[in-house]
Amino acid sequence: MMIVEKSVFRTRDVRTVGGDTIAEVAIGWESYGRPNADRSNAILVTHFFSATGHAAGRYAADEALPGWWDAVIGPGRAIDTDRWWVLASDTLVNLNVGAAHVVTTGPCSIDPATGRPYGPDFPVVQIRDFVTVQAALLDHLGIARLHAVVGPSMGALQAYEWAVAHPDRVGRIVPVIGAAGGHPSLVAWLDAWGMPIRLDPAWRGGRYHESGAAPVAGLAASLGLVALHAQGDGWAEGIGRGPAPGGDPGRRAGDRFRIEAQLASDARSRAATADANHLLYLARANQLTAVDPARIRVPTLLIDSPTDRVFPIEWMDRTAAGIAAAGTPVERASVRGPNGHLNGIAHIQQASGAMSAFLSRAF
Amino acid sequence: MMIVEKSVFRTRDVRTVGGDTIAEVAIGWESYGRPNADRSNAILVTHFFSATGHAAGRYAADEALPGWWDAVIGPGRAIDTDRWWVLASDTLVNLNVGAAHVVTTGPCSIDPATGRPYGPDFPVVQIRDFVTVQAALLDHLGIARLHAVVGPSMGALQAYEWAVAHPDRVGRIVPVIGAAGGHPSLVAWLDAWGMPIRLDPAWRGGRYHESGAAPVAGLAASLGLVALHAQGDGWAEGIGRGPAPGGDPGRRAGDRFRIEAQLASDARSRAATADANHLLYLARANQLTAVDPARIRVPTLLIDSPTDRVFPIEWMDRTAAGIAAAGTPVERASVRGPNGHLNGIAHIQQASGAMSAFLSRAF
Repeated sequence: MMIVEKSVFRTRDVRTVGGDTIAEVAIGWESYGRPNADRSNAILVTHFFSATGHAAGRYAADEALPGWWDAVIGPGRAIDTDRWWVLASDTLVNLNVGAAHVVTTGPCSIDPATGRPYGPDFPVVQIRDFVTVQAALLDHLGIARLHAVVGPSMGALQAYEWAVAHPDRVGRIVPVIGAAGGHPSLVAWLDAWGMPIRLDPAWRGGRYHESGAAPVAGLAASLGLVALHAQGDGWAEGIGRGPAPGGDPGRRAGDRFRIEAQLASDARSRAATADANHLLYLARANQLTAVDPARIRVPTLLIDSPTDRVFPIEWMDRTAAGIAAAGTPVERASVRGPNGHLNGIAHIQQASGAMSAFLSRAF
Repeated sequence: MMIVEKSVFRTRDVRTVGGDTIAEVAIGWESYGRPNADRSNAILVTHFFSATGHAAGRYAADEALPGWWDAVIGPGRAIDTDRWWVLASDTLVNLNVGAAHVVTTGPCSIDPATGRPYGPDFPVVQIRDFVTVQAALLDHLGIARLHAVVGPSMGALQAYEWAVAHPDRVGRIVPVIGAAGGHPSLVAWLDAWGMPIRLDPAWRGGRYHESGAAPVAGLAASLGLVALHAQGDGWAEGIGRGPAPGGDPGRRAGDRFRIEAQLASDARSRAATADANHLLYLARANQLTAVDPARIRVPTLLIDSPTDRVFPIEWMDRTAAGIAAAGTPVERASVRGPNGHLNGIAHIQQASGAMSAFLSRAF
């Protein structure tokens, strides 16, 4: 069992793409494996929308679940920690700001200029700004160049931004279940993800820190919508179309189906450690990224889930074609299963061979 | 130009699948073409979730837009009104209860037992109950048997219910962009469609008729989510990823993208004549239908849109296979375009040949 620990990286005066400056930035990070002599064996694993920098291992032997990509990160696994020094960090505006071990900077952070939480006065940030902070972390760790950036969904968007922002600092990328190009449909869906929060009167335009009552109902509804969008038909078939326990939706308008009740219950649990403004800022960061695949000039392994509803296979095909058209090597792999978009998390071990070979290959 | 008029059909004591009785029912209906001598040339056109019984023609020469399937209903069109007597009715719990010419019965109707609107005390109704009222309308009109039932989306679900509820009264069905079987994913998505209404404090558990303030914000958000889900990538590409006029979403958290603003504006317009409780009851009716395709024993022409997100092509394939497995003739056709699910409305004329031939064929 891999026991890991969270560290905190602090930096100052981060200039955003939008032209603002964040005076004090702190993000959490962790690592798996060890650096080689010249620190040329680092792989950055970037996390998805609802996740954190806890990509693998356990903080304690009795932690119920390991990090979210533990199936492919560890000794002898696809991202082999006997060979690679694997880094993962919490992004800016991380969703799970209230969870143990998460360290992030966003609307919940204290604005040093006022001594109060930023709330909706926090600067708009982009995926590129996440990369800026990660690059500063690499500077701090003495890493001149990453062997690879690897990540699913929003993690794939970070990989694309790494490829175009620091082509000299990244050797190859493995974007998983995430397309480049910034499709306008995704802009609209990300808006829909945040819509329930904005409908909740407790949100108060983002100024709920001042009232003390967070928009928990809206946040839970947002998380439920995100979860449904990210899931697949096989998952729904596993739950079926029966009523919730004690419910009779065929007779009583207020009663629920089992699948509704389960989505709502899961979402409420996750809302307890998440934050509404952070979700909205994270959605905006995803809306703002639109890397032209033709500008990606590092070898790419693109891993898709053909039943993905968030990043449909057509977008993945278009991304691969765009990268290849510019003469950059592109390889493809797929993961399958009942979980739609989330096959890229739940069933990523299917791509172990492709990942491992791609990371070892000489380009 | 085909000028049409709306009539009202009234009936009493409609017994629902759920075991309730609706004392007084009124629905609007209209017709295109003329009955033949024995009234054997009737085709029932059933409407989709957001629509009404105004399927073709105009109520007045200066009406801006004709009915929603005007492209395939009329003299010489796919559903040829020179040959067929085409009927279309407003369903129970019709969404657009506040629109001109719409006549429906649902939560907004006056409960004769109390003299006040039913609100959330209206009985839960199913698609099968819509069919029960349509069958009573046919009795009233002296129609023993329909030549066909034809309809898109929720209209397809009505066609499936007709086929199994009254196999002796319907000769064939043309379900368009709608699958049988009642997929649990659809149950969850229909719940998501109604979620913004339930989040709006003005909804008050459905008792907003008593307070006088309807949950307009929640209703508009619901309609926006439905519209996004029903649309396609080509539609989004036509709008692009630019900012709303005067907005700068890259710098200001409260500013919007053009596609967000357009969806919100369209939804607000449509909310003006729609009703929140009716949307929830309509969603429930759709959740409750689950016709086993093996029980459909009338010839079927299934028309899909391959980019449909509401009824994915895999569900359409499964429906066709299920009907065919029982030995019932099934034909297929597709419509394509930028509008995803809504290709079945906006581009239905592509299926004119297939519809026309199927309606004329001898079985």
